[in-house]
Amino acid sequence: MTAPLYNASIPVFRQMLGSLKDILAKTEAHATARKIDPDALLQARLFPDMFPLARQVLIACDFAKGVSARLAGVEVPSFPDPERPGFAELNGRIDTVIAFIQGLPADAFADAATRSITIQPGTPRERQFVGEQYLLHYGLPQFFFHVTTAYALARHNGVELGKRDYMGKI
Amino acid sequence: MTAPLYNASIPVFRQMLGSLKDILAKTEAHATARKIDPDALLQARLFPDMFPLARQVLIACDFAKGVSARLAGVEVPSFPDPERPGFAELNGRIDTVIAFIQGLPADAFADAATRSITIQPGTPRERQFVGEQYLLHYGLPQFFFHVTTAYALARHNGVELGKRDYMGKI
Repeated sequence: MTAPLYNASIPVFRQMLGSLKDILAKTEAHATARKIDPDALLQARLFPDMFPLARQVLIACDFAKGVSARLAGVEVPSFPDPERPGFAELNGRIDTVIAFIQGLPADAFADAATRSITIQPGTPRERQFVGEQYLLHYGLPQFFFHVTTAYALARHNGVELGKRDYMGKI
Repeated sequence: MTAPLYNASIPVFRQMLGSLKDILAKTEAHATARKIDPDALLQARLFPDMFPLARQVLIACDFAKGVSARLAGVEVPSFPDPERPGFAELNGRIDTVIAFIQGLPADAFADAATRSITIQPGTPRERQFVGEQYLLHYGLPQFFFHVTTAYALARHNGVELGKRDYMGKI
């Protein structure tokens, strides 16, 4: 039997990162067909103090990478964020993260549920979790937030997408 | 030990339904303070063929209710959807769903991971899952989609919210 927290993280991240790639592919095709500057879509925001589409993709990747690594008990790999990523760079980042998380052995997650995890989410204040709580009540809600917001931004800007594109393939 | 699929569903739905209530409370306060017609916010959409805010809340409730019931092996309760729900009705629906899912006994989820689940998502075509796959690859992605989209709609319309409101309390 595989570790429950492996099943609840890696294949879920894999599914939704695949969706993100499909969403980006349709967004890029939309830009090309209508001769829209890619940045007009990738730098679109739902509100001025929210992150733009490109950054939503990068943050979704960061959560998939960081949550998976911490649950597996390995160091979180660092990938420098490009200043103004284009479609190719965003797709490359997603591929890199998919390769990283799929390379994590399932047996590294055997003790993940009770592993003590400390994070510093953008502030000096630390936050303590045990692994199960960290995945279910922090990692997954954060990850889905950014995938959904990327979808919402593409939809809001007229890209023809449906729930099926968001749900992806299991 | 509680059933893993209980932990991965009920407390997660509980957390995010609590967030939805907080998001609605701030949205209502925003409408009141600026003398905005509640429907101007509750019927706001990110794109003409997407569901408005009120409907996003109802659908999030439907997924929390339906996924929890199917995993527990009990009948999915039916709550008729109001035509144009106001804040009070949406809050009432969230409370009803929280009470329903918290009333499900944890031991009803003991066999949830391997339970065979058949759904008909808005089409005559049936879809088959086993419980674990149903929750992780269908139920949670769908639920988070609608919670996040509700948040995105409120933010897009100027309600002062932050990620903390979305994340809620564990």
